[in-house]
Amino acid sequence: MVESVGVGLLGFGTIGAGVAKVLQRNASIIEERLGFPLRLVRIADIDLETDRGVSTEGIRFDDDAEGLIADPEVGIVIELIGGYDIARRLTLSAIEAGKHVVTANKALLALHGDEIFSAAERGSVDIAFEAAVGGGIPVLRSLREGLSANHIQAVEGILNGTTNFVLTQMEQTAEAFEVVLKRAQELGYAEADPTFDVEGVDAAHKLALLAAMAFGVRLDFKQIPTEGIRGLTPLDFEAANDFGYRIKLLAIARSRGEGQAIEARVHPTLIPKASMLANVDGAMNAVAIRGDAVGPTLYYGAGAGELPTASAVVADLMEIAREIRRGGTGRVSPLSYPHGGLRDHPLVPLGDLHARCYLRFTAVDRPGVLSHITGALGEEGVGIESVLQPGRGEPGESVPVLVFTHPAQEAALRRALERVDSLPDVTEPTRLIRIEDDL
Amino acid sequence: MVESVGVGLLGFGTIGAGVAKVLQRNASIIEERLGFPLRLVRIADIDLETDRGVSTEGIRFDDDAEGLIADPEVGIVIELIGGYDIARRLTLSAIEAGKHVVTANKALLALHGDEIFSAAERGSVDIAFEAAVGGGIPVLRSLREGLSANHIQAVEGILNGTTNFVLTQMEQTAEAFEVVLKRAQELGYAEADPTFDVEGVDAAHKLALLAAMAFGVRLDFKQIPTEGIRGLTPLDFEAANDFGYRIKLLAIARSRGEGQAIEARVHPTLIPKASMLANVDGAMNAVAIRGDAVGPTLYYGAGAGELPTASAVVADLMEIAREIRRGGTGRVSPLSYPHGGLRDHPLVPLGDLHARCYLRFTAVDRPGVLSHITGALGEEGVGIESVLQPGRGEPGESVPVLVFTHPAQEAALRRALERVDSLPDVTEPTRLIRIEDDL
Repeated sequence: MVESVGVGLLGFGTIGAGVAKVLQRNASIIEERLGFPLRLVRIADIDLETDRGVSTEGIRFDDDAEGLIADPEVGIVIELIGGYDIARRLTLSAIEAGKHVVTANKALLALHGDEIFSAAERGSVDIAFEAAVGGGIPVLRSLREGLSANHIQAVEGILNGTTNFVLTQMEQTAEAFEVVLKRAQELGYAEADPTFDVEGVDAAHKLALLAAMAFGVRLDFKQIPTEGIRGLTPLDFEAANDFGYRIKLLAIARSRGEGQAIEARVHPTLIPKASMLANVDGAMNAVAIRGDAVGPTLYYGAGAGELPTASAVVADLMEIAREIRRGGTGRVSPLSYPHGGLRDHPLVPLGDLHARCYLRFTAVDRPGVLSHITGALGEEGVGIESVLQPGRGEPGESVPVLVFTHPAQEAALRRALERVDSLPDVTEPTRLIRIEDDL
Repeated sequence: MVESVGVGLLGFGTIGAGVAKVLQRNASIIEERLGFPLRLVRIADIDLETDRGVSTEGIRFDDDAEGLIADPEVGIVIELIGGYDIARRLTLSAIEAGKHVVTANKALLALHGDEIFSAAERGSVDIAFEAAVGGGIPVLRSLREGLSANHIQAVEGILNGTTNFVLTQMEQTAEAFEVVLKRAQELGYAEADPTFDVEGVDAAHKLALLAAMAFGVRLDFKQIPTEGIRGLTPLDFEAANDFGYRIKLLAIARSRGEGQAIEARVHPTLIPKASMLANVDGAMNAVAIRGDAVGPTLYYGAGAGELPTASAVVADLMEIAREIRRGGTGRVSPLSYPHGGLRDHPLVPLGDLHARCYLRFTAVDRPGVLSHITGALGEEGVGIESVLQPGRGEPGESVPVLVFTHPAQEAALRRALERVDSLPDVTEPTRLIRIEDDL
């Protein structure tokens, strides 16, 4: 039986340093729980200079990634390089060398998951990625093993800490999106180029992984209708609040029954204040999962950050190390279903959704405009629950008109909006935010 | 390699019927995820007549529990008898026969866990009990594997659905405890004899298991200071609400650092409305777990009920079946630490707690009473944040006096209350409810 399990770390950035810290600080409790030690034997990074605030004594630290992978001392390779190309090449190279892989790279798995999971299955090595969704929250484990007896019906999550931080701040301060985003960047909650977060792409990456595990579907994240948080205004938060809602960027995947199309989408959503998800503030994440037996469940925690992410990476290391020690692999399929068993499912088109919506029209404050708007909605069969005109403009000035609709088919709603937006008095494209009342 | 894994069910009550239903309805998805089928081959119960709403076709169903345990077709025994004595005898008998055991019986494990875990370790069989804490919520798995890299710092939970239902109703309807309890009994949320739930004993059972897994401590649930929800009045909910709090029956276990005493207690608690735990309503459960790396996390779902509990039982069956299939056992210690490694830790005495408190005094409405009360608190060094006298009584009638204190040592507070309660004008023992502002 092996005395200890050796770990090699590719990528010594923030998360990599966190992993080294957790392995060092918590070495004794990790050994107590495992019954043997985990040893970080080697680190590879192109930057050999920067002080990461953690000791590398006794660890071979150089820029030789391939050497690390080939090292017989290394049983598990941690991929924390990020990005697509190099991460893909080194991950596949590690699998080919018979090494188990732990990664936090959701972009990699969303784009190249098919290739990587197939290679791991062929090579009989384990691949674990708890840190790729929900940071430190053990949500993938819960879905894969804790809820394994269930037909999963729905997964709804706040999967991106940056956007949740921005939305929470906008709500609390009534400041504009750009002001809050800038502050988030200064505080380190948003990256210099925040596109992936702000546009919902990061959440779509994660949703593709969750949907695969929940429903056994092979999902291309690029097919997921994705809408970011740009263009939301303080007025939207105020109106939502007045009507008992908060605005969250939700990633939603729902099954409509076996063999049916899957609902999958990422967009800002009005959710009732009393729902658990509505109370997830700042940079925190949460995922609600509903199963046919268990009913509604929810998992909450830090979705990013050095130590929370490292917590998930090291949990994966421990699970794989147990398997190495016992001489086994492939205890559980990484995506909960055998990889070859993933099915292609069509997605429900957005036009087929049926829900209440919040609409923000922008129109010149002139008699008759309101009747044009309500008329267009009415002709498409969209019922109106409330109309608000929060301010009067100077003659000829544009003002917002806010509408809460009754449940309506989105295709009909879109047709109505197209007509409204082509009216000469309507000066900006109308913003539609979907309402989810059952959360 | 085995073709399928056979399961025997001891106890065919509500949860037992739920397990049979989930195994039947979800047989194909369970087989798809496992790669082989789980077969319920045998059921034993003394009641062979009652219709459980589930087919027993092809399942041997009789009252021969020992025969079920001895049956070579049965690889895993599910203990759903409940209670102490028979459940203990049959569980030990199954372990002795080399059968793996799945149980939902927290009372059994809290009282006889030492004996049962030792026997399982000696006999090299697995024992799983996800359903014993938090019903369908995969919280034990999350603690044992998802957070395994962490020093756990705190576990705070709403662990009893009956009491949470009663508290939520009292808050919403402003009705008296007895009225709401009666309705909960009629609706099936409370048992005919609700003592174990209402007095907090059930929550203490669960807390003992959580604390063992979180801190590696051997904890006798009878040592855990436990206070139930009897005696709370609509006025308490109103005052809590006015000050931004909700009242929840919390089970709390906290580490004060390695080798230090452990805090463990069950009692009604004022928690800030914005906290995730405050938004857990009705019969739902939630457990907040804080680790040194992951920070705060929370797990939410149905804490009881036929199908949610069955969801957890079947997840345990699937995990063990995978091990049987691979010819292994003991992959992870059931309590996260090797059983022999559990340590005896002293508990922090309640008198050493330091927190803000809510106090409800009941005194004759007479000049001078308030100064006696505030005087007694002041002399013990307990600072007062607010005093409320919500109603005036007729001369000589008793009225409530509500006090929110500044943070104070509980021993000092108790001394002050003892003095106050001995005043002739104070007509009922003062009710103290602890405030947890950091949740």
